[in-house]
Amino acid sequence: MRKFIVGVMGQGEGADDKTLAGARELGELIAKEGWVVLSGGRDVGVMKAVNEGAKQVPGSLTVGILPNAQAKPSPDLDIVVVSDMGNARNNINVLSSDVVVACGRGGAGTVSEIALALKTGKRVILLDADALSNAFFQHLSEGKITSVKTPREAIAAIKRLRK
Amino acid sequence: MRKFIVGVMGQGEGADDKTLAGARELGELIAKEGWVVLSGGRDVGVMKAVNEGAKQVPGSLTVGILPNAQAKPSPDLDIVVVSDMGNARNNINVLSSDVVVACGRGGAGTVSEIALALKTGKRVILLDADALSNAFFQHLSEGKITSVKTPREAIAAIKRLRK
Amino acid sequence: MRKFIVGVMGQGEGADDKTLAGARELGELIAKEGWVVLSGGRDVGVMKAVNEGAKQVPGSLTVGILPNAQAKPSPDLDIVVVSDMGNARNNINVLSSDVVVACGRGGAGTVSEIALALKTGKRVILLDADALSNAFFQHLSEGKITSVKTPREAIAAIKRLRK
Amino acid sequence: MRKFIVGVMGQGEGADDKTLAGARELGELIAKEGWVVLSGGRDVGVMKAVNEGAKQVPGSLTVGILPNAQAKPSPDLDIVVVSDMGNARNNINVLSSDVVVACGRGGAGTVSEIALALKTGKRVILLDADALSNAFFQHLSEGKITSVKTPREAIAAIKRLRK
Repeated sequence: MRKFIVGVMGQGEGADDKTLAGARELGELIAKEGWVVLSGGRDVGVMKAVNEGAKQVPGSLTVGILPNAQAKPSPDLDIVVVSDMGNARNNINVLSSDVVVACGRGGAGTVSEIALALKTGKRVILLDADALSNAFFQHLSEGKITSVKTPREAIAAIKRLRK
Repeated sequence: MRKFIVGVMGQGEGADDKTLAGARELGELIAKEGWVVLSGGRDVGVMKAVNEGAKQVPGSLTVGILPNAQAKPSPDLDIVVVSDMGNARNNINVLSSDVVVACGRGGAGTVSEIALALKTGKRVILLDADALSNAFFQHLSEGKITSVKTPREAIAAIKRLRK
Repeated sequence: MRKFIVGVMGQGEGADDKTLAGARELGELIAKEGWVVLSGGRDVGVMKAVNEGAKQVPGSLTVGILPNAQAKPSPDLDIVVVSDMGNARNNINVLSSDVVVACGRGGAGTVSEIALALKTGKRVILLDADALSNAFFQHLSEGKITSVKTPREAIAAIKRLRK
Repeated sequence: MRKFIVGVMGQGEGADDKTLAGARELGELIAKEGWVVLSGGRDVGVMKAVNEGAKQVPGSLTVGILPNAQAKPSPDLDIVVVSDMGNARNNINVLSSDVVVACGRGGAGTVSEIALALKTGKRVILLDADALSNAFFQHLSEGKITSVKTPREAIAAIKRLRK
């Protein structure tokens, strides 16, 4: 019954076009696997793009954990959870995900989510991260983090982790 | 896209048989309307019963907001959100619900949820509450709370609130 | 080293003059005992009054748990903790208090705090509560709540609880 | 009235001796300035050391934000705030601090705190961080982070920030 949840993290404001295109494709691929997309829920950046991608797939399910009741939710969310916890919701995002994918050059919020995910032993995949971020998180995680270049590689990595 | 969410609150340990039967029927009726059931997610009491009821209906959707990663989730949950906020998750439960139904003689946790719901202006329905609770919450809410006797009346009340 | 903390709860907007005078006296009496006053921290109502009272006493210590960084803190706070959790901070308020005193006719926020305190086994004192609230909480707590009429009686009750 | 709060972050389990000695000295120096030490509150690692240092100074004030009621608090805490939010309390730690100092090679928890501090615009000082961490956070913060080698340099940096 309980569905497999992929948490997709990344910048709201400030995400570049390549990252947004990757997030959209990733959302679609996650949905095609029958997995749930979970995000920070806002109508901007990676959060918006991943939900757009997922809703291209009939029967897909998208969950957003909003920072507060004033934040505008992505229109492509099925389930809106209002946390009223601001950035502390990042901890809920990672705890509620079976695996976490961070898209592109994340900002400070994304970095906090990767760190909180590692802190609680969640598996993390970095999608198209820069060299400095890869080096930093490989060191922090003692090599447990997975780095991939494309959304298809991210899906393949998730499938390996599930085995 | 965004689905209508009914939060169903009530005792975990200590709920009586009538309350549990009511929660089960309520879950089924909510699901038949195509609405989402949201609860505190644990595998006990009203939380367990309402999800059992909802999953009698094909295509139903159940969301549980767990207190922490150690809590056993109801097996009838589709989406498990792990808050790691203990009883503070009660605020998330009510903020994420379009309307809140409290089942039977609630314990202290349920009372906190009703109070938090009123504090943030959510509509609350008391299902089969005792006379003292009804009097107390009618007074606290200045008459804004709705009291009903049966799950069917709860559904009818929700439909009136949606208009 | 660790100081004894009395959590003082009550309405922000809407508290009547008698309740505010009681909160002010209570703050002063708590501080005279060498105990810490903890409140919801805002610059209004019972929160403001109890801190004013406490700071009449040299060497007193006042802690406020603010809902968010935008809320105006009481000017009589020594320590301001910014929760960014909105009303969910009510759970922090009660968990951080050795005993909780609720002042006057509380609103929905205060009711949630009393309920959360009972839920986690904290001792609760109702100061000058109305008959309906007293009846409701005595029933909810199975007689474990203490009802008093004056701030001096509240201090005496806290001393009995500490023995 | 409101006191100036320095949040001191760093590893619990796994902190090395040099980092612990630095945290102890930092705690003492903060207290000598009349500032409050705020930490994650547990009786281990940097949290324990910084409070030990601060309590060498008469009249010092130490505040700990515990993850939950089961966590053992540092015996050198004056004020214990129980969040029951697990790692999400890291957001409270940084929001409640006027400036944040991260000690040594932080683990994932410390990284999340630095990131959350940057996310909310708090000033951050890295004390004796390794080259990779310095490079990563300078890049993430667009040069806004301050790196120092010794506790005395950290105090000097805080004084500059306060001007």
